[in-house]
Amino acid sequence: MLMPKQNYCSNCGNAVVYQHAEGRERCVCNNCNIIHYTNPKIIVGALTYWEDKILLCKRAIEPRKGFWNIPAGFMEDDEKTEDGAAREVWEEAEAKINIIQPYLIYNLPQANQVYIHFLAELKDGVYGNGVESLETRLFLEDEIPWNEIAFYSSTFALKRFLEERKTGNFKTHLASFPDK
Amino acid sequence: MLMPKQNYCSNCGNAVVYQHAEGRERCVCNNCNIIHYTNPKIIVGALTYWEDKILLCKRAIEPRKGFWNIPAGFMEDDEKTEDGAAREVWEEAEAKINIIQPYLIYNLPQANQVYIHFLAELKDGVYGNGVESLETRLFLEDEIPWNEIAFYSSTFALKRFLEERKTGNFKTHLASFPDK
Repeated sequence: MLMPKQNYCSNCGNAVVYQHAEGRERCVCNNCNIIHYTNPKIIVGALTYWEDKILLCKRAIEPRKGFWNIPAGFMEDDEKTEDGAAREVWEEAEAKINIIQPYLIYNLPQANQVYIHFLAELKDGVYGNGVESLETRLFLEDEIPWNEIAFYSSTFALKRFLEERKTGNFKTHLASFPDK
Repeated sequence: MLMPKQNYCSNCGNAVVYQHAEGRERCVCNNCNIIHYTNPKIIVGALTYWEDKILLCKRAIEPRKGFWNIPAGFMEDDEKTEDGAAREVWEEAEAKINIIQPYLIYNLPQANQVYIHFLAELKDGVYGNGVESLETRLFLEDEIPWNEIAFYSSTFALKRFLEERKTGNFKTHLASFPDK
């Protein structure tokens, strides 16, 4: 998903330059006068539970292959955030979910990414291994492999969830990495 | 901000094609074998209040020039969602804010956009007219120009806020246009 730096104008094929435009350095085509804006990408996912267990997938692809993660992936054009999250759970865990609420907005400014994690419940307890997963499993709290979690956003969401389910009062969290 | 359809590879300058790749039709360069992914863009903003009034800006630019809006704009690379919202309030309303919480995730799948609106309070009651605004004003509830609000996302957020401030129990909302 990482793209090389832009060399040519996607509109006219001319070589582009990097220069100050609209407040910061941007990629500009001085042939057809287009500014090639780039913006952060959204990663949608769902912290999914079933009874007292949490669904995690062991990643079959880089980055962090072999580590456990909340099912998530890049949001596609033409979809809604919650539909993208459900699609990712289906692709990675072959599971259907009911979205409960937005649960976490997690900024990764150094990667130009924003995670949007929803809280969700498995529809029927059924799950499998999607092609992007080595393994899918429901974990009890004391089984969670904390040292093998793929991303900080997942660790953050899991910790908040385990705290908040004691009272059933689930907030929508805002956090970042790094956390300053 | 709307870009024309991609004609050339931004990496090698070769003509691109649109073909099935990674689950859907995508722009592909068959010279350097890059898939040119496109993803929804994030628009960050802040429903900003001061005492019993709400801050709105009259847009000086298209789309919806001359209509009132919650200050918002495209999130930039290298920033956090909440910092982008504060930047937009500064650019449009010359006002400093304290972010209270995430308030609305609003999907616009037909435009490939996701609004993230925060709830925020003016730091000191001071505001002005940014270059993208014809006018900036604090509105009492019964002064809000409902027929001159620029975007559905703003109308949605304003209505929820006016309901919820009666009790002080502010949720984080998820909604879409169209709402099905």
